[in-house]
Amino acid sequence: MKYCLGVDVGGTTVKLGLFEDNGTVLDKWEIVTNTKNEGKAILPDISATIFSKLVEHKIKKEDVIGIGMGVPAPVTAEGTVNGSANLGWKYKEVKREMEELSGFKVNVGNDANVAALGEMWKGGGAGEKNMVMVTLGTGVGGGLISNGHIVAGNNGAGGEIGHICVNYEETDICGCGNKGCLEQYASATGIVRLAKKKLEKEVRSTKLIKDTVTAKDVFDCVKEGDVVAIEIAEEFGAYLGYALANICALMDPTVIVIGGGVSKAGEIILTFIKNAFEERVFFANSNVRFALAALGNDAGIYGAAKLILED
Amino acid sequence: MKYCLGVDVGGTTVKLGLFEDNGTVLDKWEIVTNTKNEGKAILPDISATIFSKLVEHKIKKEDVIGIGMGVPAPVTAEGTVNGSANLGWKYKEVKREMEELSGFKVNVGNDANVAALGEMWKGGGAGEKNMVMVTLGTGVGGGLISNGHIVAGNNGAGGEIGHICVNYEETDICGCGNKGCLEQYASATGIVRLAKKKLEKEVRSTKLIKDTVTAKDVFDCVKEGDVVAIEIAEEFGAYLGYALANICALMDPTVIVIGGGVSKAGEIILTFIKNAFEERVFFANSNVRFALAALGNDAGIYGAAKLILED
Repeated sequence: MKYCLGVDVGGTTVKLGLFEDNGTVLDKWEIVTNTKNEGKAILPDISATIFSKLVEHKIKKEDVIGIGMGVPAPVTAEGTVNGSANLGWKYKEVKREMEELSGFKVNVGNDANVAALGEMWKGGGAGEKNMVMVTLGTGVGGGLISNGHIVAGNNGAGGEIGHICVNYEETDICGCGNKGCLEQYASATGIVRLAKKKLEKEVRSTKLIKDTVTAKDVFDCVKEGDVVAIEIAEEFGAYLGYALANICALMDPTVIVIGGGVSKAGEIILTFIKNAFEERVFFANSNVRFALAALGNDAGIYGAAKLILED
Repeated sequence: MKYCLGVDVGGTTVKLGLFEDNGTVLDKWEIVTNTKNEGKAILPDISATIFSKLVEHKIKKEDVIGIGMGVPAPVTAEGTVNGSANLGWKYKEVKREMEELSGFKVNVGNDANVAALGEMWKGGGAGEKNMVMVTLGTGVGGGLISNGHIVAGNNGAGGEIGHICVNYEETDICGCGNKGCLEQYASATGIVRLAKKKLEKEVRSTKLIKDTVTAKDVFDCVKEGDVVAIEIAEEFGAYLGYALANICALMDPTVIVIGGGVSKAGEIILTFIKNAFEERVFFANSNVRFALAALGNDAGIYGAAKLILED
């Protein structure tokens, strides 16, 4: 039996998984991310905890295939990042440094892309090789998988689904500096923005309260049949569904996996997305399937493990 | 020295190239495409002409790596097509049939995608591994290359750049049945459509003539400083430039290669596309380079050769 490590490096905690090479998880644990001093301790801390865990499980070094890592930054093909605000890193040769620290082979990818790979391997896209993943959280992230491989791009900035423009008439500015990005309509904060705009002018009765409305409130009210909430969900669904129809014309995936906090509302959100998607999908992509993400916060460690196993 | 064949199967002619494995072309020739009887003779004709050519060049069968083919249809990962209107084919296991006919290993791809691979190998994108190619002809086609590989997708329908929606207000219907596809604005026929719409209401002096205007006329007049033509080119550039900004957010390419008949107008078209692109590009993609396609009608045979060499 061979083993590998999947590491999901976040700004608060580092999640780690010890895997058998068939994908079985032997152990899962977390350590705190020490972002002090430009995050200098992060990689040594990861290396140290991995070695303790290998000792604990009596796994020999020669039986370890390597370490896969997802980090919150664009990652070049050489495993280098040009800075990560969340970790405090400036320019950092992550792959090289981690290989020197650990003595293992290391592969590194962007965390959102790596999570998509995890969902393809063991989650909502299991068994598929062509997948689009959209993560609806505070922002909109994602990952594109083509023939089993992450579309990482030249700067490691592939799959930035949240920053395709879906509304050229928008006047509000996105965090990225552009106007009309998908993230402004389909993230948790985007849904709140849509809701507040609607509630400002709304005269019909609704349970939604303008000052405190959350994305969860919107979908909770949708489930109760609240007409105003349904219209907000339809607007969200239209922006996202149309954007996904365009992405499918480019990627021709088998499955679209929807994850992130917003997706916790469940199957109901797929209905709104699918209705809009079907209006606009290119005929060659009409057999695409929708699924909810299945791995939750573990998608990152699964994808990181796959990143080293597939190499 | 090893050799391979690159075959570009079109509805009128089949273009063939005999390559050394370093990419040097030893010979280029064409045969007529016999589309009679559901195109039954096409593959046997190709096999026969290849064998004559190998004899002519005194190349032994064992020195041939294989045959790459581009065909005008979506192609599955197994090398099967579900019909090609241009060739008369219904369901056809192209890879299997051609391997049986020739005794060589065969790889098959969609012609537009394969042409993109050719431009990456030896054309406008030479030296790059992440590329977006857009072909502006009667329609808008294209191909996406991620880490050196074609994004073919589940049905072999990846890279359908012409059918992403760029205008949700459009009332005219695209050939695909949708409304607002990029093809309706950026193909040769799309540019004519934009020109005619503008010329119907135009009161300023222009050399463009509504009833006979072509895409070439538009760019010829642009070069002479015709203000009406310049505005048409700006409209074309905006639709295409904005669409490419979105594609870059997904693919993060190094280079965007523009080919097809419309691109024969030269560098001037890049100016209109780039101006719009730069207004909307996601910051991580701002270093992307634009280039004109360099291989013309030979892109298909180069890409087909690469398809078998890279395997």
